Amino acid sequence: MSGKRKLGVGLIGTGFMGKAHALGFTIAARVFDLPFELDLVSVADVTEESAETARAHLGFRKATADWRELLTDPDIHIIDITTPNLLHKEMALAAIAHGKHVYCEKPLAPTVADCAEMVAAAERAGIVTQVGFNYLKNPLIFLAKDIIESGEIGEIRSMRGIHAEDFMADANVPWSWRLDPRSGGGALADIGSHIIASMRHLVGPIRSVLAETVIQIAQRPVSRGAAETRTVEVDDITRAFVRFENGATGSFEASWIATGRKMQHDFEIYGSKGSIVFTQERLNEIKVYYAGDDIRSRGFRTIWAGPEHPPYGAFCVAPGHQIGFNDLKAIEVHEFLDAIAKGGKPATDFREGYEVQKVLSATYQSARTNEWVEIG
Amino acid sequence: MSGKRKLGVGLIGTGFMGKAHALGFTIAARVFDLPFELDLVSVADVTEESAETARAHLGFRKATADWRELLTDPDIHIIDITTPNLLHKEMALAAIAHGKHVYCEKPLAPTVADCAEMVAAAERAGIVTQVGFNYLKNPLIFLAKDIIESGEIGEIRSMRGIHAEDFMADANVPWSWRLDPRSGGGALADIGSHIIASMRHLVGPIRSVLAETVIQIAQRPVSRGAAETRTVEVDDITRAFVRFENGATGSFEASWIATGRKMQHDFEIYGSKGSIVFTQERLNEIKVYYAGDDIRSRGFRTIWAGPEHPPYGAFCVAPGHQIGFNDLKAIEVHEFLDAIAKGGKPATDFREGYEVQKVLSATYQSARTNEWVEIG
Amino acid sequence: MSGKRKLGVGLIGTGFMGKAHALGFTIAARVFDLPFELDLVSVADVTEESAETARAHLGFRKATADWRELLTDPDIHIIDITTPNLLHKEMALAAIAHGKHVYCEKPLAPTVADCAEMVAAAERAGIVTQVGFNYLKNPLIFLAKDIIESGEIGEIRSMRGIHAEDFMADANVPWSWRLDPRSGGGALADIGSHIIASMRHLVGPIRSVLAETVIQIAQRPVSRGAAETRTVEVDDITRAFVRFENGATGSFEASWIATGRKMQHDFEIYGSKGSIVFTQERLNEIKVYYAGDDIRSRGFRTIWAGPEHPPYGAFCVAPGHQIGFNDLKAIEVHEFLDAIAKGGKPATDFREGYEVQKVLSATYQSARTNEWVEIG
Amino acid sequence: MSGKRKLGVGLIGTGFMGKAHALGFTIAARVFDLPFELDLVSVADVTEESAETARAHLGFRKATADWRELLTDPDIHIIDITTPNLLHKEMALAAIAHGKHVYCEKPLAPTVADCAEMVAAAERAGIVTQVGFNYLKNPLIFLAKDIIESGEIGEIRSMRGIHAEDFMADANVPWSWRLDPRSGGGALADIGSHIIASMRHLVGPIRSVLAETVIQIAQRPVSRGAAETRTVEVDDITRAFVRFENGATGSFEASWIATGRKMQHDFEIYGSKGSIVFTQERLNEIKVYYAGDDIRSRGFRTIWAGPEHPPYGAFCVAPGHQIGFNDLKAIEVHEFLDAIAKGGKPATDFREGYEVQKVLSATYQSARTNEWVEIG
Repeated sequence: MSGKRKLGVGLIGTGFMGKAHALGFTIAARVFDLPFELDLVSVADVTEESAETARAHLGFRKATADWRELLTDPDIHIIDITTPNLLHKEMALAAIAHGKHVYCEKPLAPTVADCAEMVAAAERAGIVTQVGFNYLKNPLIFLAKDIIESGEIGEIRSMRGIHAEDFMADANVPWSWRLDPRSGGGALADIGSHIIASMRHLVGPIRSVLAETVIQIAQRPVSRGAAETRTVEVDDITRAFVRFENGATGSFEASWIATGRKMQHDFEIYGSKGSIVFTQERLNEIKVYYAGDDIRSRGFRTIWAGPEHPPYGAFCVAPGHQIGFNDLKAIEVHEFLDAIAKGGKPATDFREGYEVQKVLSATYQSARTNEWVEIG
Repeated sequence: MSGKRKLGVGLIGTGFMGKAHALGFTIAARVFDLPFELDLVSVADVTEESAETARAHLGFRKATADWRELLTDPDIHIIDITTPNLLHKEMALAAIAHGKHVYCEKPLAPTVADCAEMVAAAERAGIVTQVGFNYLKNPLIFLAKDIIESGEIGEIRSMRGIHAEDFMADANVPWSWRLDPRSGGGALADIGSHIIASMRHLVGPIRSVLAETVIQIAQRPVSRGAAETRTVEVDDITRAFVRFENGATGSFEASWIATGRKMQHDFEIYGSKGSIVFTQERLNEIKVYYAGDDIRSRGFRTIWAGPEHPPYGAFCVAPGHQIGFNDLKAIEVHEFLDAIAKGGKPATDFREGYEVQKVLSATYQSARTNEWVEIG
Repeated sequence: MSGKRKLGVGLIGTGFMGKAHALGFTIAARVFDLPFELDLVSVADVTEESAETARAHLGFRKATADWRELLTDPDIHIIDITTPNLLHKEMALAAIAHGKHVYCEKPLAPTVADCAEMVAAAERAGIVTQVGFNYLKNPLIFLAKDIIESGEIGEIRSMRGIHAEDFMADANVPWSWRLDPRSGGGALADIGSHIIASMRHLVGPIRSVLAETVIQIAQRPVSRGAAETRTVEVDDITRAFVRFENGATGSFEASWIATGRKMQHDFEIYGSKGSIVFTQERLNEIKVYYAGDDIRSRGFRTIWAGPEHPPYGAFCVAPGHQIGFNDLKAIEVHEFLDAIAKGGKPATDFREGYEVQKVLSATYQSARTNEWVEIG
Repeated sequence: MSGKRKLGVGLIGTGFMGKAHALGFTIAARVFDLPFELDLVSVADVTEESAETARAHLGFRKATADWRELLTDPDIHIIDITTPNLLHKEMALAAIAHGKHVYCEKPLAPTVADCAEMVAAAERAGIVTQVGFNYLKNPLIFLAKDIIESGEIGEIRSMRGIHAEDFMADANVPWSWRLDPRSGGGALADIGSHIIASMRHLVGPIRSVLAETVIQIAQRPVSRGAAETRTVEVDDITRAFVRFENGATGSFEASWIATGRKMQHDFEIYGSKGSIVFTQERLNEIKVYYAGDDIRSRGFRTIWAGPEHPPYGAFCVAPGHQIGFNDLKAIEVHEFLDAIAKGGKPATDFREGYEVQKVLSATYQSARTNEWVEIG
């Protein structure tokens, strides 16, 4: 008996991200002193069978092929949505309508209007929301933010961001839902929202963008190995110039055809007194340069994550041992539960998901006209 | 109901490693299709209070201040020992006597004789054992072993290994159990066993060693901030030359005063047709060189862990996302449970722990005489 | 007596680049089997005194404060121009009028029209020209070009280029000729031409650009330490999207306020079957990825410069010894002299300097309107 | 007319190192304000033809097949010896007998007795000597020495050094003079003297060593492609433990069969307040760790060579441009000429070469007995 109030979780979707979320809850419960006792109540998937398999595997009590059952389950306080983007809105609105807190994978929804509707509903209902911008939940990204906010590297002048992978680099990768324009776009919508989130998180609100999108592989097989092809309508690469509200400028690029790249979530931030360089390819280290260091021994410092970078210490009391991707999800869960307990808002709540989507949408709009688009 | 047989765990010790083991069990249950349904039955620690705190936190059902209670608990099939080295033997022998499988942190015990007794008991009882040489449970170390065994880099000629950290580098770090000679030694016994294990795992049995030990900080405060000091009798640094049974040679070094190093578990392996370079500081990448590559584009390949390196895919279906230290523990648990299910032996069972201890002991012996010592 | 024809050099300008050129000639004469015997005839600078100092130091026979004297010196066959950009045209045209071959630092001239005039004069006169795009003269850049042209990494889809330094990052750096708009611009004109040259060299002609320029430090002291300031009118940062004629796309950025960066001449090139990653910060290594490598041991290969990458072997018969910046200048000189001997054209002749300037000019034009500008 | 006194150079040997020395003189004359006007007088090689080819190429005035002619040439003040080790002594003693300053490639001679004789003769004659330990002439190695001597990283506790290459890794590389035991040994004598020199240079005199040598490739073809083989009697790998006079300890390893390594001249130095990590593979950068930096932003600083690290600025006024191997030779020449002008001693004079040879010899002696050998 922990004496803590039980908080029940209902998970919708059991793919890559469903599993990562389940791990996030499980790990969080062991490494953090959570404000609640977690109860993994029920998991919903498309079929009874897949739901049951996931239930057994992911450690939930119940399984269902009807996600709506979770809404009325009195044991469930959190609805966790890891389904394809197109389904987020309906599920989130239904959860909100039932007074549930909502944890939703990014991107929030394919359109700004959808996101706005979700934010409005959530804020009206007073429930707590969280969006899965997991790369921000890295102890070293918290450090980066802290260094920036402390003024240690001076006024931030520019940021260059990349999110590149290569899972679509092979022209034989067939057409799939990722290529369906209704999902909200291509590389930018699918993975680029991560780098937009990092830019907002670290440097602040984005005022305007000037962008282009590129389709490099114009036709894809309709299915693996098929001779018949289908025309690709969404971006393989999107590039944008960025103007931040605070006067800094920058750029970002999203690509899913960057041959050889598996997780190039990179950024470089240049301030008047220092700079920060990071790549998610090495998530347990970050490079920081201080222009004020003695000139003869000045250089980028490679900082390894350790207990001095909370919440690393929750995972391991010793430095250098390293955390992994699923641990980032645990930190995300922790932040969410803390907000529920304290009535606060996670840094990446629905409103933040909506703000990211506005930038994303403005980027696509700019790419159509090649004009600067203000983020409303 | 998974239909799987339940396997109960009793954990002794709730410090750094106790938590890591608990996480290992918890994560393993979510990412692998384990052969058993795990039941975290009971946790034992020095006081009722600390045991209860750990119980609640780590997800066990019961808590006790008497570790012997676990031995007679019919729900418990595995005794997991994460206490100081000096206590391993008594606990392990007791567990074996009760027919429990035993999972024990490294090093197995302070002396070879102790280890031998533990191995004999375990093998007589027919139970399954596992020792916590977690760095070997890295998907990329499995890759390294596979590359070596496949002959891709030819005949192995040499290996250089390091395990260096800096947690004792500050001369003000006070005297503690780590410095008690009864623990089996200093840096070598505490962390050097990891690099011995890596050398045996990758290149094979070690035939002989020639070694030296160094005490750089001769006096330590008796407690933090104390003026009174106590003489240090164990090694800050141990270095050894190594001769493998297969004709390769090498060296290793263990240091706990390597200022700036947090996890320098490094090695370089040179073969007649290629080489492998690794550092635990970047556990999700490994460098491999093939002398047979076209000369103009030949170079060390930096390989990032991905689903093509089992069991990475159990943690994440996409490459580049990275696993962390606690995930290595989950792989260790998985290997242990698989061996229990199949009646096999983990690669790092008690016998392997005993073999490592023989090398460690021979190293200390050689350091006293500076003569080559054969590993019996 | 080498039996080779003598080729005389007249150098104008004795600053950073004057010295680098003199070293280029001197080193080239020792490491290459040049087609000529070089004669460092005369050096011209603003004053007799500075010219004489340079003469003695750089190993020339004569010195003068009147650069026109070099034009009529019958011993001089090459006029080497390392003066500020604004002076290049007058000097080059005069040299050409006297039938001299011309070696000129980049950028060729501040305007496209100036460059065109220079190219026309040079081609009419049939003399040989060379522009100082030294970063292209790296053995590993030759390798990169060879890998691309061989088709090894497939069809090139994208290239991202950066040239960033920090010599203007401190807002106290005073106003200077670099900030004079008549020089042709700011960061882009000064250092960005290098990255444009790299993009053209490796991926091919650029069809169009969409760009923006940013002035981050709006006022600079009129001189070091002065309270009085002067308005900055040229770019601290310029960013551009790029469309190549062959269908590839890309981007480049030039910045002279990238705190901590000393020589971030970086690029990443992504093809359908591989990729290449380079930074001038480590000019003796390049990373190449082959998608066709066996999946489990696939990764970016770090290739160190060696004799297998001509003309590295001219500097050192053993790999791994490394060449430096001045050695790149020697390779540039070698290429120039070879072209003179064979009646050929260096890859970076005046026409190439003109083509680079067209891209540079189009970039500034696009930055004014934020519209795509075709390179004529 | 520089007004400087002329200093004539006579070079013996025109191979890899002969060329590097000639480049060293040539570059030094252009980048430094040397105290003399250099006169490359004459070059001697085995045949008239090879000497003449070298003369023309390397910029000397005269050529000869009789190296003794250089001794009596009144224009020659420096005898520069780049012949095989076995010939150093005879040539150096002859040069000294004629009152010439002597610049000699490392290692000084195959035996300690030979070296002692050379030192005695040189010191008696009062001439200036220099040995080619070029890796010490790196601006960043001067920085490392300065950081150590300043006490910034505290008391030095340990140093680990490696010099590994792979030019003998292929078992088909035939027997050659490198394998002739009369040359003084194998990998250690050939390349290991470099790492001994680095250890002495940075941490100080070595008191004793405990070593082993390994022959991994026992037979080599008598010539390239031959079926007949010859037994190898010299070390492929030598490893040693080291005790410095100041109380620090360490180890070094020399290998010429380290597949994939081209210039692994690496070291790590650990002090009580910081550490330094370097590899010659990236000679323009060094990593320094300060334990006193703020804990949350503490990490190894990657320092790039720049004008703040003399004499880098002689080669280039801007940081980040990088120097190469031949530039290290130019710095070596500069130090030598400065000592001649001022009557001083280069850091790596014959006495230092002798001290290195004593360590080298003690290492081989220890390897025969596996006992600690004191350096006399």
